[in-house]
Amino acid sequence: MIGFTGNTLDRADGLRHDPEAFAAAAGDWRARLLKLDGLLPEVSDDGRLAWTTLADLPDDAQLILLGLDEGRPHFAAYLPGFRPSTAPAMRSPALMTMLASLAPGEAAIYAAARSLIDWHARHGFCANCGTATAVIRAGWARQCPNCAAEHFPRVDPVVIMIAEHDGRALLGRGKNWPAGRYSALAGFLEPGESIEEAVAREIHEEAGVHVNDVRYVASQPWPFPSSLMMACVATAADDAITLDTNELEDAIWVPRDTVRAVLAGEPGPFLAPPPYAIAHTLLMEWAKG
Amino acid sequence: MIGFTGNTLDRADGLRHDPEAFAAAAGDWRARLLKLDGLLPEVSDDGRLAWTTLADLPDDAQLILLGLDEGRPHFAAYLPGFRPSTAPAMRSPALMTMLASLAPGEAAIYAAARSLIDWHARHGFCANCGTATAVIRAGWARQCPNCAAEHFPRVDPVVIMIAEHDGRALLGRGKNWPAGRYSALAGFLEPGESIEEAVAREIHEEAGVHVNDVRYVASQPWPFPSSLMMACVATAADDAITLDTNELEDAIWVPRDTVRAVLAGEPGPFLAPPPYAIAHTLLMEWAKG
Ligand SMILES: [Zn+2]
Ligand SMILES: [Zn+2]
Repeated sequence: MIGFTGNTLDRADGLRHDPEAFAAAAGDWRARLLKLDGLLPEVSDDGRLAWTTLADLPDDAQLILLGLDEGRPHFAAYLPGFRPSTAPAMRSPALMTMLASLAPGEAAIYAAARSLIDWHARHGFCANCGTATAVIRAGWARQCPNCAAEHFPRVDPVVIMIAEHDGRALLGRGKNWPAGRYSALAGFLEPGESIEEAVAREIHEEAGVHVNDVRYVASQPWPFPSSLMMACVATAADDAITLDTNELEDAIWVPRDTVRAVLAGEPGPFLAPPPYAIAHTLLMEWAKG
Repeated sequence: MIGFTGNTLDRADGLRHDPEAFAAAAGDWRARLLKLDGLLPEVSDDGRLAWTTLADLPDDAQLILLGLDEGRPHFAAYLPGFRPSTAPAMRSPALMTMLASLAPGEAAIYAAARSLIDWHARHGFCANCGTATAVIRAGWARQCPNCAAEHFPRVDPVVIMIAEHDGRALLGRGKNWPAGRYSALAGFLEPGESIEEAVAREIHEEAGVHVNDVRYVASQPWPFPSSLMMACVATAADDAITLDTNELEDAIWVPRDTVRAVLAGEPGPFLAPPPYAIAHTLLMEWAKG
């Protein structure tokens, strides 16, 4: 399963538009609350997220309806005033280890909760007029009491891709990455471009490589803080690399056999991305040929 | 060409990070400014966008670098205080006629400009602390003078899709749509889900149809105000429809031959979507079989 996918909860969109039904869900004695320490989950030995009851929540906690499991409501809570760290430590080695240990589908529930809590924490004010906003729609939106604008959680589309040329894949490494790490190139899609255009632009900007024939492969949510990763393969017109050293420290062409070997755990010129990252899925698909 | 794609300008990302080079571009006597009446373009008889010089801009105009054409800078301008209409009239019949008449690639330039201007107009304040923000990065971001948060233009991913069953495509019509109009179902992708999961969720929410095997087809930017449309086809498990009447007024299964005939201009049970909408691309692809 692709990382952070496979959420089995029913998002129950209807409850977001029905304050009475939402209140009933919040009052349901079977309701479960996702246990979080800030933005960090608690993970059991068998790879399950830990849950608790709503009983001990402070009065000002804002409930976010994650969804229903056979009618049983599952919530996360946003505590007003909570400030997530903006440091790269948001993806600490401890969290990475937890993510790698989560059972399929569990990381998807965590991803939705984390992205929403982080969004609330950074979007407490109306971008349209500057007034403090209030949570509405079961935690899935905020509304301004001054100008009535509704604000919805952001999902930022990101393209992540390999260029291929003559049976080799283009991998790059960012500045300050861990030693030996190379991965697919990636970048934010901008207003006014398609996925395919963003893929071509990013590969050209970062590595100076012209591509054509962009093929979509797969997608995943990525909750750092809230991206949609869209993985593609593109055919390079030639293999000359011109690095944008503001973006990349190095870029290399890696033959398919080598990619296959590294993904199988053998030593090679780069470290494989972790299995929950879609770069892993993308390289696995490409390695099949 | 897919609607709103094919922008031939070089976005020149480097200039966004180089205030001196940006100032030089703004002072370039060859610089062109996109002519807009609010958010409406001016279109020549041969389908070209109209441009003017920077000479007559008011002092407080904020330049947005759309990109370079053989080194020649192309800008749009955001005038502080401009308030776009939030009414559905943003897609007036007059604008729809203009869009249909634009030469390939011209609509893509307009899409980027429109999405950015609209974003600036609705995002003048810091969502993190409520302070008025300032334009930075050649018009591609805003920064808060109080908390230093940087804010980037939104691009909201939207899935648009047809379910197929036994050679028929599922089309729906929204409430208050023009008479006879049916199209692919669509909805915003949410935090914590992949494209494929969003497609399955939306089809189930809106029409009660379970699908599997989601296949990506194509994407386009959609500047009303700033979406990324991701078109897919999904295989339906069965053809029983349960309408969510809050979302849809009707949904119908249309045989491939009928879709093909309607797209070829023949009368049928629905009106074809306009060519610049990706629903048109999607139906064309599906009609090929
Ligand atoms: Zn407001
Ligand atoms: Zn601020």
